[in-house]
Amino acid sequence: MQQAVDREQVRAIVDGWRESGSTIALVPTMGNLHEGHLSLVRAARSVADCVVATIYVNPTQFGEGEDYASYPRTLDEDCRALESCGCDLLFAPGHPTVYPLGLENSIRLLAPHDLSSILEGRSRPGHFDGVLTVVARLFNLVSPDLAFFGEKDFQQLLLIRHMVADLSLPVRIVSVPTVRESSGLAMSSRNNYLDPAHRAAAARLSLVLAEVVDQVGRQRENWAQAERSAASRLKDEGFKVDYVVVRTSDALAKPSSADDGLRVLAAARFGNVRLIDNMKIF
Amino acid sequence: MQQAVDREQVRAIVDGWRESGSTIALVPTMGNLHEGHLSLVRAARSVADCVVATIYVNPTQFGEGEDYASYPRTLDEDCRALESCGCDLLFAPGHPTVYPLGLENSIRLLAPHDLSSILEGRSRPGHFDGVLTVVARLFNLVSPDLAFFGEKDFQQLLLIRHMVADLSLPVRIVSVPTVRESSGLAMSSRNNYLDPAHRAAAARLSLVLAEVVDQVGRQRENWAQAERSAASRLKDEGFKVDYVVVRTSDALAKPSSADDGLRVLAAARFGNVRLIDNMKIF
Repeated sequence: MQQAVDREQVRAIVDGWRESGSTIALVPTMGNLHEGHLSLVRAARSVADCVVATIYVNPTQFGEGEDYASYPRTLDEDCRALESCGCDLLFAPGHPTVYPLGLENSIRLLAPHDLSSILEGRSRPGHFDGVLTVVARLFNLVSPDLAFFGEKDFQQLLLIRHMVADLSLPVRIVSVPTVRESSGLAMSSRNNYLDPAHRAAAARLSLVLAEVVDQVGRQRENWAQAERSAASRLKDEGFKVDYVVVRTSDALAKPSSADDGLRVLAAARFGNVRLIDNMKIF
Repeated sequence: MQQAVDREQVRAIVDGWRESGSTIALVPTMGNLHEGHLSLVRAARSVADCVVATIYVNPTQFGEGEDYASYPRTLDEDCRALESCGCDLLFAPGHPTVYPLGLENSIRLLAPHDLSSILEGRSRPGHFDGVLTVVARLFNLVSPDLAFFGEKDFQQLLLIRHMVADLSLPVRIVSVPTVRESSGLAMSSRNNYLDPAHRAAAARLSLVLAEVVDQVGRQRENWAQAERSAASRLKDEGFKVDYVVVRTSDALAKPSSADDGLRVLAAARFGNVRLIDNMKIF
């Protein structure tokens, strides 16, 4: 596995691949890699000639009081994990590569209001602006043909698809299903913040979502009631519920018909740890 | 000259050029072409294999009460002028090509505060956000190697250079000097709003700037005094002065030393018409 830390290095490698006609896949990450990330690398590996993973903890997507400073940074382990999955290039840029004129002077992308102000956007104002800002920059630096994102961050996935269509970016977005622990808990770097007892309890978030999938999937209606009973169960399990909602899969709108593709999405705190999860209903 | 109005058409033509190894130059315009625009096309023609001019009146760079609706649209004349300059492709997209998910749902670029909030940005809040938003979109649609912009809109030129560096866009920006009428008046589509008597008087803006160039250029100091006397002369000539300032050429900062490259920039209203102009001092 090759490594690059700045623009010149990554361009030299990627331009060489391009000249030989290879297809290039990008897997953007913030590091602290788990099986969820590695499933993205494997999916990329299975369809592209060359796979680039990026590790960059992007300051502009963290809000005031969020865990930017303490976000786990585990580069050596991440390297070994990427190498074992057949990643061709690890691009781990510093801030001057991603924000070459400085954070203060940087151009920001503003996500569209409707899709970015609900759910995660409501709890984390500016978060998706930061996500789009960094993803557009990584696309420009690496110029991949394909880019892989997990369904775990479903609203992020929709916003990135939106950005690619809206800005006519020359990249195809591929989504990969959420990877779960045997308990059902969706893999997340922030699960490391949970102690073992809390980790077992946190897994119940996924069980409650699976019940919503089952209930709404069978009845194809009554989503509002399913939302209410899910919220109530989560509270009983010790969660502080931020949201648990049934929404359309394409726009995260409130469902108007049972013919819409639907998804259940939730965010809840367990102790000090904020967890998110989502599942396809139909 | 070929013509394209949507993404598929422009991509088909440009991809064909790319495959044959041609270099591609872009000249973005809002139409109503004058000699200033045509000098950009000729400059592009002289260095690139293929020249694309775009004509698109971008709604997101006009503020409330500005002249978006009445901005002159003269496509037939523009076509003939471009053809006579050897332009290879006129790309005149509609809104659904530039903003495919609708203006409401579009992603916006936010220009860096320092450079976008002064001078033109102070009079026209959000203007440069709109400019960067549309220029980035046109770059993505056309993917040129080179893009040509006039020095007439000097702050815009700096912000576009800033964007290219900051977002690592794979395009080289080439600037072209302002073209002037024999009176000295900088060419501008908005000059059409001036009646003949006003047009002659408006030319005095450039004469006053030339005096600042002369005065500061000889003394290499006293720019504050030169600014004051220029503002006073413009008022005497019947202008309502928005600003007339001496600034550094690289960042539009207040000069701190005579070693800085300096430029004089001005905006002033004559009747209902807002004119801008700028000149290099040294």
